[in-house]
Amino acid sequence: MTRPVAAIILAAGKGTRMKSDLHKVLHPIAGQSMLLHLLDAAGTLSPERTVVVTGAGREQVEAAVAPLGVSTALQAEQLGTGHAVAQAEDALAGFDGDVLILYGDVPLVRAETMRAMLERLNAADAPALVVLGFRPADPGAYGRLIVAEGGDRLEKIVEYKDASDAERAVTLCNTGLMAARSADLFALLGRLGNDNAAGEYYLTDVVEMSGSAAVIEADAGEVTGVNSRGELAAVEALWQQARRARAMAEGATLIAPETVWFAHDTVIGRDVTIEPNVVFGPGVTVADGVTIHGFCHLEGATIGPKAEVGPYARLRPGAVLEDGAKIGNFVEMKKAVLGRGAKANHLTYLGDAEVGAGANIGAGTITCNYDGYLKYRTVIGEGAFIGSNSALVAPVTIGAGAIVAAGSVLTADVDADALALVRPTRVTKPGWAARFREIMRAKKSAAKTGE
Amino acid sequence: MTRPVAAIILAAGKGTRMKSDLHKVLHPIAGQSMLLHLLDAAGTLSPERTVVVTGAGREQVEAAVAPLGVSTALQAEQLGTGHAVAQAEDALAGFDGDVLILYGDVPLVRAETMRAMLERLNAADAPALVVLGFRPADPGAYGRLIVAEGGDRLEKIVEYKDASDAERAVTLCNTGLMAARSADLFALLGRLGNDNAAGEYYLTDVVEMSGSAAVIEADAGEVTGVNSRGELAAVEALWQQARRARAMAEGATLIAPETVWFAHDTVIGRDVTIEPNVVFGPGVTVADGVTIHGFCHLEGATIGPKAEVGPYARLRPGAVLEDGAKIGNFVEMKKAVLGRGAKANHLTYLGDAEVGAGANIGAGTITCNYDGYLKYRTVIGEGAFIGSNSALVAPVTIGAGAIVAAGSVLTADVDADALALVRPTRVTKPGWAARFREIMRAKKSAAKTGE
Amino acid sequence: MTRPVAAIILAAGKGTRMKSDLHKVLHPIAGQSMLLHLLDAAGTLSPERTVVVTGAGREQVEAAVAPLGVSTALQAEQLGTGHAVAQAEDALAGFDGDVLILYGDVPLVRAETMRAMLERLNAADAPALVVLGFRPADPGAYGRLIVAEGGDRLEKIVEYKDASDAERAVTLCNTGLMAARSADLFALLGRLGNDNAAGEYYLTDVVEMSGSAAVIEADAGEVTGVNSRGELAAVEALWQQARRARAMAEGATLIAPETVWFAHDTVIGRDVTIEPNVVFGPGVTVADGVTIHGFCHLEGATIGPKAEVGPYARLRPGAVLEDGAKIGNFVEMKKAVLGRGAKANHLTYLGDAEVGAGANIGAGTITCNYDGYLKYRTVIGEGAFIGSNSALVAPVTIGAGAIVAAGSVLTADVDADALALVRPTRVTKPGWAARFREIMRAKKSAAKTGE
Repeated sequence: MTRPVAAIILAAGKGTRMKSDLHKVLHPIAGQSMLLHLLDAAGTLSPERTVVVTGAGREQVEAAVAPLGVSTALQAEQLGTGHAVAQAEDALAGFDGDVLILYGDVPLVRAETMRAMLERLNAADAPALVVLGFRPADPGAYGRLIVAEGGDRLEKIVEYKDASDAERAVTLCNTGLMAARSADLFALLGRLGNDNAAGEYYLTDVVEMSGSAAVIEADAGEVTGVNSRGELAAVEALWQQARRARAMAEGATLIAPETVWFAHDTVIGRDVTIEPNVVFGPGVTVADGVTIHGFCHLEGATIGPKAEVGPYARLRPGAVLEDGAKIGNFVEMKKAVLGRGAKANHLTYLGDAEVGAGANIGAGTITCNYDGYLKYRTVIGEGAFIGSNSALVAPVTIGAGAIVAAGSVLTADVDADALALVRPTRVTKPGWAARFREIMRAKKSAAKTGE
Repeated sequence: MTRPVAAIILAAGKGTRMKSDLHKVLHPIAGQSMLLHLLDAAGTLSPERTVVVTGAGREQVEAAVAPLGVSTALQAEQLGTGHAVAQAEDALAGFDGDVLILYGDVPLVRAETMRAMLERLNAADAPALVVLGFRPADPGAYGRLIVAEGGDRLEKIVEYKDASDAERAVTLCNTGLMAARSADLFALLGRLGNDNAAGEYYLTDVVEMSGSAAVIEADAGEVTGVNSRGELAAVEALWQQARRARAMAEGATLIAPETVWFAHDTVIGRDVTIEPNVVFGPGVTVADGVTIHGFCHLEGATIGPKAEVGPYARLRPGAVLEDGAKIGNFVEMKKAVLGRGAKANHLTYLGDAEVGAGANIGAGTITCNYDGYLKYRTVIGEGAFIGSNSALVAPVTIGAGAIVAAGSVLTADVDADALALVRPTRVTKPGWAARFREIMRAKKSAAKTGE
Repeated sequence: MTRPVAAIILAAGKGTRMKSDLHKVLHPIAGQSMLLHLLDAAGTLSPERTVVVTGAGREQVEAAVAPLGVSTALQAEQLGTGHAVAQAEDALAGFDGDVLILYGDVPLVRAETMRAMLERLNAADAPALVVLGFRPADPGAYGRLIVAEGGDRLEKIVEYKDASDAERAVTLCNTGLMAARSADLFALLGRLGNDNAAGEYYLTDVVEMSGSAAVIEADAGEVTGVNSRGELAAVEALWQQARRARAMAEGATLIAPETVWFAHDTVIGRDVTIEPNVVFGPGVTVADGVTIHGFCHLEGATIGPKAEVGPYARLRPGAVLEDGAKIGNFVEMKKAVLGRGAKANHLTYLGDAEVGAGANIGAGTITCNYDGYLKYRTVIGEGAFIGSNSALVAPVTIGAGAIVAAGSVLTADVDADALALVRPTRVTKPGWAARFREIMRAKKSAAKTGE
């Protein structure tokens, strides 16, 4: 593709069936909005311009794309898909190249498919339009693509309600996605009429007007549309299924693939084992040889080679496990680095912390990183040993090789190789428990009688 | 339906294939026994009387329905379905209206279907009986409903073994459910014979005797029967699938719907997001805008608008989250209220507690609500800050805006805006850890040599 | 079967598509390597000898079978399946009996099927070979078994590429598994040629040479092969599905069977209820009447009658729950016994511990069993009460009926019926929190201004 490319993404629809205050195209798939999925895929074509056509809920969509250098065009009235595309004309003023028409609620279209559309547009026979077709399991009421025999030339698009029996028997259906040269596209749109029952301008009408359209076929999965939460879940499932297959093909064992949920940007190494029930939020990288046990919830974490995670580990953004480090059950990490071979095996919270190589964090250890106003750091040296049930009141530094005795509440630094022990005198009262039992049994029995 | 209604539920079968000490009809679907599901659905018809026919394990069934004002009738011997229904005659003495015959192990029949049966019974042509049919994916050995052409009049029910090839080709099968006028029903049952190989009284025989039966069709799903734990799981799956679809249709996002399990009475708001792997026990209400992260286990909880729950939150009966409150990972709540905007983010147990608006409960906080005999309350004021790893020994009250220092064991009240600090003197032993390491390495190596 | 049996398991393939440093046949299904699954099944035939043919990655395979008294034979060059089997000849020197040829990457073949192959081999008509066939959902490019009409005599095995249309229409395909008398087998292999495009010795060629082969049919599931992680997951799923069905048939309720993962050796009693999302590692035994709540992760644990586990319980090897004991949420047990009716309901770590009958372990209790070098035991007597957030520094013994006050750090024994209390003096600073808030608000606001 030597010609410049622009993408128009239609996102003006209300999405009423979503029953949501959030705009339809901002609902997430794999932790990223549908709109961003499309922008990512389209982005691989290095489009010179991208225009999102907005309507209902435009503020939300505008806010979402503002940081991305993507322009928007407002479709103030809902006068049909042709009208929606026409609103992008101003934003594309001065642009001369190929235009892709995409839909914000058809989020899984692959970059390869977009590229194939553009390549077909620029083939030697130079069709005026390229239309993307698909063959759904149940063609139902989709518009049918009527293709001339012995080629890929599209004769017309027939709405289901207007189709003859022979036309209804055609299994190739219209996705609505198109590619066209910018000059052709807006010229055709300018001639589009709305002489129909709904009084709308239909994009599909440009096909016959163009006199020369070609068809490319997509997989049914990638052109699945989202109009309801049920369809959102279905598209999420399609995305996850493909991602799981890729992880396995690249050398990860997923014991129960259907129970592992990846995010759009998860990176998984080779010889990684993932037990059932692991949820990846955005921003996770997993190196080779890692084992992730069941029931883990990971987000924004970097997991080094041969590290071991879980079960029941919750890694939040900024969690870093170096080579061979280990996070066990009921442990939460946030903005914390666990050094090479270090361990935090049970019931621990490591927040805003740095743990040196080989250190051992005992069960029930809490880094007290927050005083209600600000966050503070805990630094634990190499080979240090933190006794169980300790509270490390940050800011605090524990030297390399130091030992903190179990149950300590540490409010000041500990030198390297020192022992810190914060522990009161013990009081023992012989026979007290037996007396207590008698009193309490009487009390409980009295309480019951009183009920 | 202006005529009074009665329901007869057959629950006399042994359920041997369940391999259980619990009576078959008491096995739960979505956290409620099959029998109660049926009673709930039938209850929407406001039946004047409901009779459960018991047999094997009658004590369990009687105990289950006793609190509900439902009567039981004993079928002392297992002499067939017709005989079972006849046992309800005494309990319906004096009743003159329409009778629905239901089965305790066919628990998902919808109220709409029951209502349709009664409406058909009372239509102008007044059939003597209404029989509920269905079209299973595999008709197999089900009895076939032979319907007169051009209508819904049932000519006969043919057992599979007695059916001709033409009859076997019929896909409409018998569910066993019926509706009839009480007088007709018991008159017919009185004339029923047991002149067959098994010597049993078959309810299906009344159809031909009646001379006038009509057929209503049910969805195959709602008339699925349960005879084994495998079928119990299948019916649970059907129920959950329908419930998930409803939650999504009403505006909740279920990222992986197949991993969310609802209870029979779960209430879910709009714009609620539920991550993978959430289990709802009975009694949960979720308001609009709530996010429930993965791996949550909720029962008897009330979750207010825009609250955030989990991952790994366990809410037990009596847990209440007010607007925007937040329960984080590895936190358990029981009979506890978390006020507006209050937070308990990590590794905490809140039992028999009241937490004021905006309070912050540090990681590792435990309300010590039990002394082995009685339970006591913890009250935490608005805006209080509980330092990490604190033990709050109830009964105890922490005033508004008070601060409890990390690691405190609090056995008495704290005034508003006060700081409470229960912390011993610290002892530090320089170099101790290094000496300890040497001793222990020698000891460990000696221990190994000795093995 | 009165003749001696030997098994040859081919495990010389590289398994390149697994993309793993671990040998293909050592990848686990249900927590046990594929090779061990096969050895277990073959073991039920009490084979006199078992030979694993190794090649690439032989060291790993040899190390895995060394402890089992199974011999290996090296196939130094990859010259085809016939050549691979021939390498076992030396290891079977002096053996005179029936030989089963199995594949390390076809792990689910049932012992019943192996037995049927041997029985067919020894039937009155004494075929020289028995070939195992199957009917896959999609016969695709599998070799077809051409069987003589009116019997089970195999005329030939036709590779798909050499097959006529009529032969391709045959749905019975070749698994590659065979049984033969040892003398016949090695005589046939000795005559095998490699006059083909690949220059390999094909095991299938012995069928025609034998002049007398019979066919046995297997279920398609049990002969599914594993060449990739995706196929590994598929075989795991088949195994789990069968195991879940068996658990339900034997009287366990699995609310969502598809979310329960068993290990190869899990033992489940009657009237056991398993909520959604439970992972069994190896070595777990569950007695009658047990309830396992959701999100449990169990390995090497013994769970007594009517015990209650979870949700979020993590039982590690050596965890033992006696009758009616209860482990609650966010609790980890390892090498620990929880006596009859004892409870550890929340946020606890019990390692190297013994808890007497009826004892109550408070929330947040940690057994501090490790000092960085050695592990020590904690012994808690019958009926003892451990207050919340206690740290029990092992070795330590708490007498029967003793009470440990909440928040205690216990470093020495407690007598029976005594109260132990390790708690410092409390300091209270009225108004301190209010002053702190003012200072911190100023600080935080200054910090923000400075950003």
